[in-house]
Amino acid sequence: MIHTEKHLKSSDFITDIVIGMSDGLTVPFALAAGLSGAVSSNSIVITAGVAEIVAGCIAMGLGGYLAGKTEQEHYQSELQKEYAEVEAIPEKEMNEVKEIFATYGIDEAGQQLLATQLAADKTNWVNFMMKFELGLEEPDPNRARNSALTIGLAYLVGGFWPLTAYFFTATPREGLLMSALITTLCLFIFGYLKGKVTGQKQLLSAVKVTAIGLVAAAAAYFVAIGFDKLF
Amino acid sequence: MIHTEKHLKSSDFITDIVIGMSDGLTVPFALAAGLSGAVSSNSIVITAGVAEIVAGCIAMGLGGYLAGKTEQEHYQSELQKEYAEVEAIPEKEMNEVKEIFATYGIDEAGQQLLATQLAADKTNWVNFMMKFELGLEEPDPNRARNSALTIGLAYLVGGFWPLTAYFFTATPREGLLMSALITTLCLFIFGYLKGKVTGQKQLLSAVKVTAIGLVAAAAAYFVAIGFDKLF
Repeated sequence: MIHTEKHLKSSDFITDIVIGMSDGLTVPFALAAGLSGAVSSNSIVITAGVAEIVAGCIAMGLGGYLAGKTEQEHYQSELQKEYAEVEAIPEKEMNEVKEIFATYGIDEAGQQLLATQLAADKTNWVNFMMKFELGLEEPDPNRARNSALTIGLAYLVGGFWPLTAYFFTATPREGLLMSALITTLCLFIFGYLKGKVTGQKQLLSAVKVTAIGLVAAAAAYFVAIGFDKLF
Repeated sequence: MIHTEKHLKSSDFITDIVIGMSDGLTVPFALAAGLSGAVSSNSIVITAGVAEIVAGCIAMGLGGYLAGKTEQEHYQSELQKEYAEVEAIPEKEMNEVKEIFATYGIDEAGQQLLATQLAADKTNWVNFMMKFELGLEEPDPNRARNSALTIGLAYLVGGFWPLTAYFFTATPREGLLMSALITTLCLFIFGYLKGKVTGQKQLLSAVKVTAIGLVAAAAAYFVAIGFDKLF
């Protein structure tokens, strides 16, 4: 019998697509649905939808860029702190190494041996502390830019489909029906694929993702109608 | 001289507030700005803005809930795999332990000592593999629910301010000017505080966050005007 290890290592690229497309398929659709209950012209729905997609795409894309940059700066600043610490207070840092191993049942002699060997090379020592004390790994230098592009494009692609319905229908009501059909289908397919790549049950994932989109749209629809009646 | 270690341990709560409020302050504002260039009535801008806030709040909140639940399920499923592996192929798992420490310059004898001591207790061994091979830590069981509420509320609070301007002005153009002033102020304060709690330079963070919001709004504004002229 051949045993193969299958652990899911979540890819940043897939995570970014999921982030962008989840929101892209949900928010512009829900906004269009909300407006459909309150205005009488498809062109207002389309204009609002396009404005929302552009805004969301840029805000999420640039947000992803900033998050990536922050992660990098955070890693570098912690790295410098660790180098300064193993220089200034090596005994304290060696004790931290021992404590980490103590929690996994390594005995006193083993802790001492490990701490001594790690301390022999500052780079190894600092890398060890970064990963095992702080749980930080060096981020990919292109992560911020890639993340921005992937999230932004995924939002754009996701947001486009719900709007198409309003181009080919005469009234917001008809547009909403068609848009709901198209979007439900898109959400279901997206949820299914998301379940597949993230190692969850596909059908369950499809149902969950679809439900979120429809709940958000229904809430936006009824709140927009309610607000519209107040004016 | 007293040396204190100051490492930033990023709090989930703060991360969630930043996620929700970044988008909340940016997207509804940008949508309202885009519509202000294309429609003639404040009430349409308000209706669309409210629909967007409700949609975004629910979509992001429920999205945060799903992400939290997925993290938990992922952890549990990997935990079961690791227990199965240390049972079925203990030699291979012991070699993985040794390989991990070899990368940090621990010698053969040290690697063997560690692997043997870890293997003496399956719980310790599996916990070690979870953290040091896979980089996974057991998630807080309340994380999904808390995350949903925090992100959703932060989005709501962030999205509310830009819209207020349209209540107290007569035309979308006046509303946009007032909204841009209010939102620029909010973005700046939020960026400053975000920089403070995440350990970045506060002023730089304030400028970056404000710039993203204004760029997204400007893009939405011009694209919406362009689209409106097409119809």
